[in-house]
Amino acid sequence: MKRTDHNGTLRLSDAGRTVTLVGWVSKRRSFGSLVFIDLRDRSGICQIVFDETIAEQVKDVRSEYILQVTGTVQARKDPNPKMATGEIEVLASEVNIVNTAETSPITIADDSDTSEDVRLKYRYLDLRRKPLQDNLILRHRIQMTARRVLDEEGFVEVSTPILARSTPEGARDYLVPSRIYNGRFWALPQSPQIYKQLLMIAGMERYFQIARCFRDEDLRADRQPEFTQIDIEMSFAEEDDIFRVVEKLMRAIFLETKGIELPEAFQRLTWDECMRLYGSDKPDLRFGNEIRNITPLFEQTEFQVFRSVIDNGGEINALHFSNIADQYSRKALDKLQDFLKSGFKAKALAYLKQENGVLSGSIAKPLSEAEKEAIQREFDLKDNDIVFVIADKASISRTALGALRVRIGHEQNLIDRSAYKFLWVTDFPMFEYSEEEQRWVAAHHPFTAPKAEDEDKLFTDQEHCSSRAYDLVLNGYELLSGSIRIHDQELQEKVFEAIGLTMEQAKEKFGFFLEAFRYGTPPHGGVGIGLERLTMVLSGTENIRDVVAFPTTNSSLDLMSESPNYVDDAQLEILGIEVSESTTESK
Amino acid sequence: MKRTDHNGTLRLSDAGRTVTLVGWVSKRRSFGSLVFIDLRDRSGICQIVFDETIAEQVKDVRSEYILQVTGTVQARKDPNPKMATGEIEVLASEVNIVNTAETSPITIADDSDTSEDVRLKYRYLDLRRKPLQDNLILRHRIQMTARRVLDEEGFVEVSTPILARSTPEGARDYLVPSRIYNGRFWALPQSPQIYKQLLMIAGMERYFQIARCFRDEDLRADRQPEFTQIDIEMSFAEEDDIFRVVEKLMRAIFLETKGIELPEAFQRLTWDECMRLYGSDKPDLRFGNEIRNITPLFEQTEFQVFRSVIDNGGEINALHFSNIADQYSRKALDKLQDFLKSGFKAKALAYLKQENGVLSGSIAKPLSEAEKEAIQREFDLKDNDIVFVIADKASISRTALGALRVRIGHEQNLIDRSAYKFLWVTDFPMFEYSEEEQRWVAAHHPFTAPKAEDEDKLFTDQEHCSSRAYDLVLNGYELLSGSIRIHDQELQEKVFEAIGLTMEQAKEKFGFFLEAFRYGTPPHGGVGIGLERLTMVLSGTENIRDVVAFPTTNSSLDLMSESPNYVDDAQLEILGIEVSESTTESK
Repeated sequence: MKRTDHNGTLRLSDAGRTVTLVGWVSKRRSFGSLVFIDLRDRSGICQIVFDETIAEQVKDVRSEYILQVTGTVQARKDPNPKMATGEIEVLASEVNIVNTAETSPITIADDSDTSEDVRLKYRYLDLRRKPLQDNLILRHRIQMTARRVLDEEGFVEVSTPILARSTPEGARDYLVPSRIYNGRFWALPQSPQIYKQLLMIAGMERYFQIARCFRDEDLRADRQPEFTQIDIEMSFAEEDDIFRVVEKLMRAIFLETKGIELPEAFQRLTWDECMRLYGSDKPDLRFGNEIRNITPLFEQTEFQVFRSVIDNGGEINALHFSNIADQYSRKALDKLQDFLKSGFKAKALAYLKQENGVLSGSIAKPLSEAEKEAIQREFDLKDNDIVFVIADKASISRTALGALRVRIGHEQNLIDRSAYKFLWVTDFPMFEYSEEEQRWVAAHHPFTAPKAEDEDKLFTDQEHCSSRAYDLVLNGYELLSGSIRIHDQELQEKVFEAIGLTMEQAKEKFGFFLEAFRYGTPPHGGVGIGLERLTMVLSGTENIRDVVAFPTTNSSLDLMSESPNYVDDAQLEILGIEVSESTTESK
Repeated sequence: MKRTDHNGTLRLSDAGRTVTLVGWVSKRRSFGSLVFIDLRDRSGICQIVFDETIAEQVKDVRSEYILQVTGTVQARKDPNPKMATGEIEVLASEVNIVNTAETSPITIADDSDTSEDVRLKYRYLDLRRKPLQDNLILRHRIQMTARRVLDEEGFVEVSTPILARSTPEGARDYLVPSRIYNGRFWALPQSPQIYKQLLMIAGMERYFQIARCFRDEDLRADRQPEFTQIDIEMSFAEEDDIFRVVEKLMRAIFLETKGIELPEAFQRLTWDECMRLYGSDKPDLRFGNEIRNITPLFEQTEFQVFRSVIDNGGEINALHFSNIADQYSRKALDKLQDFLKSGFKAKALAYLKQENGVLSGSIAKPLSEAEKEAIQREFDLKDNDIVFVIADKASISRTALGALRVRIGHEQNLIDRSAYKFLWVTDFPMFEYSEEEQRWVAAHHPFTAPKAEDEDKLFTDQEHCSSRAYDLVLNGYELLSGSIRIHDQELQEKVFEAIGLTMEQAKEKFGFFLEAFRYGTPPHGGVGIGLERLTMVLSGTENIRDVVAFPTTNSSLDLMSESPNYVDDAQLEILGIEVSESTTESK
């Protein structure tokens, strides 16, 4: 089909040229005998003028009709500085109505008046909006850059199965019944973890895959049933090798898609440092206000609350903000108190404000003058400063202040919105205690290596046993997680034992995978980068559906195709399954 | 982990350098006090020499152990011209046994002694073989080139859902039960067809995706349950536009992966021409020997067999081969006869051989001298030539001779194995008659546009109604198929009617998709390229499992992970399904 130019690319330098454009009618206006049509294609919009010699041919044309127009580019009398093509228009000499359109159920130029559910039902129309198209193009550009960089670094993209083995207790697995082997099932992979480690055992050395993953989770706003991971695994690699590759990858992606220059190497903190300073394993480093442990100031305190926390091995941590004390009235402080109590288990939020050199606030009275002076010195307090204090079990005190830090950071606009602050968080705990199962479980996954110096803590001090798991955090979001894996059989068996798995149980769960480890497994490690999250960060959206072409609702419904849906009994019969009676009844 | 070089890359120019290598022990030999180890990594193999000062440290090292070796590159006394690194060896000064290995159940250097089933069970060991690694790398390179070229041409890669809507009667669909909506199912897509057409309606204009597809088929040697398609769709495009993009893509892939230069444009034949000349819609053009319709020579024949075929509207077609008549004894000819009867419905295979200028053979007697002379003239016959003749219904005669052409082409080595002969086959039939359903069904899919000049045949002459569907054929294999789609609602309704679907039935099957067509659908078309097939052609393998990292058997079993497998009843319960009793009993 004849088309000489893309609509959004015409400029004043094209004036005088005869062009043929195609696209959708974005807007149509009449002025006397003239008709003006904004014609939209993927590249943008161009204004077409139909004069009296040809206006008749477009008199029935409505929004979203598709036209093919030939005409001459000319300078506009009244340039529109808001449009990329605002200096020109095309005077039509020929027009072909390529297709008609019924009235669109959503307004494409402006989505503000339409509910998200309606827009999801008519996703193919919502996708005509430029911001959404730009997000899909951005996602494409991220993938193109990622593949180029990884290829340059010697990584080979290998596709691993979507029809994979189900694992016992794989409660978050989507299952697929087998027609040939009735009664048996595949599972859709939650990640290519096992396959990529097998590829290391296979000697592929450097693997990547932009991999579709599946997790059957309950409703969460920032998740979709299927999501995408830039999945990377390297042999003969340690943390530094992997970090270097990821840093190169991120630098290239940010530079090429957004022109943002990132530093050569990203900041690193251990998980423990992170928890101490930010009370979070994904701190937002776009502002300071680190947590400070002020327990030493109260070694001799007579304030009973602090005394008992210290005697019980707890911590007194504090958070200092300059020049905002006047904005935190009693009522505002009560709100913060409630926020921390309900979500973060903190019993009490104490505070001190300085006014005319004097401290007031919830703990001004019980503290001694010396203690108050110590606090003033510690933070170099000025008038109108505020210090929040939580004395509690260390983990509760830190986490609560971490949450408070982020909340006030947002409330007070302390965050530099133009900054991209990357942070490697390393040495994650090897285990976490499952209250539900009343035992220590693997915090990452059971193939993660412990720190060499902590191997002796596997059975004796699980709480303080660190692993070689790491996350990359950006502006408070976890962008990827990964680890150095265990490559030694004996160590693997020990780790299973430490999380209470017998070798028999381990074999039942990971059988063929464990066998593979016996035949020469290289040291290896890797990461999985959340592609949707990365695209969200770069496009500046908070809605995951803005970066997915055909998303589902938060409750996993595709409103456009109305799926999942019911199927014929005959289809189920050949699969050897039935819908349970209790379900059929409620249908 | 320290590593200065890749094993397969060392050359004589590296002599004198101190290097650190890592890899797997491929072979280990002792000569007196010396130990020689071939150390393998992804790049290749390098010979390491351990002299008496260090040999003790590797005395227990066995095949597939992993070593890290530091040493000095030196020229070999006896160069091995078969190895890329055959001119050098590394004299070890330090060695670190990185990991041990049990005896591998398969021989990695040579797979000839191991059954495919055993190799599939230990796929991660089989993948250590260089030919398989090279295939995965080739597949990666094809993908990299495809993405670069399509990106250059303005195509955007968009991911479409794997959890998709099941279609009624989707008998080849894999189904996924929903946990949140018990009793409802998703289907894994057989192709992204509907989604990519929706992206055209959405105004994306140029889409591609290297897309995972799923088809629950019965056992076929060249299929896998999941496969990959380089999926492309273009708006405002006609056949020429799409062919140009695909030709550019193929030229780049063949040049960059294999150094093969392909012509600027590929040959084209209509489906009808193809069937006439080659009796196949995927002819192998690496040799000639086209079918010739010799019916006109027998307008006046008194040979009853030919007479009756002509009177019944059949055809007499012939295939001529030079200088091979002596190789087709009565017995060999009987075999060909059986081959055609059993697989191709041909009642009889006639033949004529020329010896000393005289024709002999099965129809030498019933034909008149004039008819035989006409045949000799027609083919310019020489001694030892043979002409095969089949008189039958046109389609049977052509198809049978097409199959015979390929068989003899292979038997007689007429095929130039170094050639890559691409062919566009266009104007496929719009319909094919389903004997099973006793009606005309869509030959491609019901969204394929009919040829404009054949629209009036939709109801009156379905047999001769041509479509805008096309295939790209390479060396006798279908590499891709595609079509220009219908973008006009009225025409779409007509086509549904022609295949016996009421609008109500069409809506039940394709509901939301048909609605989308109402809001301004651009003319569009596209292709889906079989990535596994393309990789097979370029790697020279006939086994699809050679180009898939983790393949299944022909009966869809993954022997490595033993999947599909049984799952806990509790898992099924939350999905609201049960395994049918009849299945449970036989379990």
